Amino acid sequence: MRLLITNDDGAYAPGIKALHRALNQDHEVWVVAPETEQSAVGHAITLVDPIRVHPLTPETGMTGWAVSGTPADCVKLALRELLDEPPEMVISGINLGANVGVNLLYSGTVSAATEGAILGLPAISISLGTLTQPDFSHAAAFAAHLVKQYSDLQVPLGVSLNVNVPALPASQIKGVRFCRQSTARLQEKFLKRQDPRGHLYYWQAGETMGTQGDGQTDYPALLEGYVTITPVGHDLTRHGVLSDIRDADVGLPIWDDN
Amino acid sequence: MRLLITNDDGAYAPGIKALHRALNQDHEVWVVAPETEQSAVGHAITLVDPIRVHPLTPETGMTGWAVSGTPADCVKLALRELLDEPPEMVISGINLGANVGVNLLYSGTVSAATEGAILGLPAISISLGTLTQPDFSHAAAFAAHLVKQYSDLQVPLGVSLNVNVPALPASQIKGVRFCRQSTARLQEKFLKRQDPRGHLYYWQAGETMGTQGDGQTDYPALLEGYVTITPVGHDLTRHGVLSDIRDADVGLPIWDDN
Repeated sequence: MRLLITNDDGAYAPGIKALHRALNQDHEVWVVAPETEQSAVGHAITLVDPIRVHPLTPETGMTGWAVSGTPADCVKLALRELLDEPPEMVISGINLGANVGVNLLYSGTVSAATEGAILGLPAISISLGTLTQPDFSHAAAFAAHLVKQYSDLQVPLGVSLNVNVPALPASQIKGVRFCRQSTARLQEKFLKRQDPRGHLYYWQAGETMGTQGDGQTDYPALLEGYVTITPVGHDLTRHGVLSDIRDADVGLPIWDDN
Repeated sequence: MRLLITNDDGAYAPGIKALHRALNQDHEVWVVAPETEQSAVGHAITLVDPIRVHPLTPETGMTGWAVSGTPADCVKLALRELLDEPPEMVISGINLGANVGVNLLYSGTVSAATEGAILGLPAISISLGTLTQPDFSHAAAFAAHLVKQYSDLQVPLGVSLNVNVPALPASQIKGVRFCRQSTARLQEKFLKRQDPRGHLYYWQAGETMGTQGDGQTDYPALLEGYVTITPVGHDLTRHGVLSDIRDADVGLPIWDDN
């Protein structure tokens, strides 16, 4: 297959190299990824700045481009401008750090796969459940494994699969679990500092918290030792709430034309 | 009520001033908004850079802070650091340009309200359906109207309301319609240019396209002349797809521990 890979840790991050290595054996792989780390950019796209593009150097062992934009920009630009033929699938990752729960909203990795799905392609985002032990080999092997089985799953167009792989030895990975997005979320805190000129600034920090929810949701299942797969869409409507409030009489204010 | 207002067009944009003016009469209003335009940043948060904060100057007629971050950063920072007491509601806008369809994902305006909802607050995002005729008065009046009625709607916590107001004379606004997110999306195109040093760069442009879907969805309803209200959440799981693939036997690849 002809595959497009991207990420949010940047084109020179070890996670994308591991992904490329695992997929390049059996597929034609093109890389279009941010030239610098874009973690937590979510589904940002670049409208107010120009976007620059540099071919990846041969030393990377990868063919493609580094882009001065976000992961979603990379997918759009790849399809509209950079690739001569459209890819058959988009794979985003391997992210250093799980993408579970509410954090899916902040994740450039997940958003790149969502963008691929919006543009009508099968798409996978894949992340490794650790910030400290970056051995991407199992996650990369799982990505290659899932790419081969993707069509059997008959995932509808417009939906991507968000995958998290536990950072465990193979013997401790219990299996694959399809599950819902959990309510786990980044519990943010702000570190207040003073710069050398006496001006205040903040660093945003935080850690993923909250394992409420059962093992049928992503974060608890990942912590139990399962590879998690969540089908992800882009309809934010809360349909149940809509049914409840649909007939409410909000009315219009009294306003004057001017 | 004590209200937090923010936006993605920046603290000095006319839309937030109009919103402030409409709400400040009856409420205690705090502004925490990006210091520069952050359009299309989606749900980005700032983790890899420090965040700076400047009090708004008295000339703005508003009380609060301009922040060197994204709309979602503004909401988090307001709640965690800047406001002495938490607000009772978050209102984001008024955005210049509709936020409908797939564009909700790219919208900093919508993401700020979503962030408020994640943090447990009632929240509204509001946008004006034009890029060229920035008369915010009707949208501002509608925001004030909806704030007063919000509690009657019994919107559950964790859900925000995304509002779009047509850029029409009052006599042509047909009413309020609660509706789903449509499948309308940004049809992006890239303008390829050369800088003075001969290097290529791209501008991302595009327009919202696609009115597929009935008048029970946001973009068609807005074009018909209705104020649209969509309840928005942050669970991206496609539950129907999950049911379909839950028992698929993907299995684990054969991998060696290393």
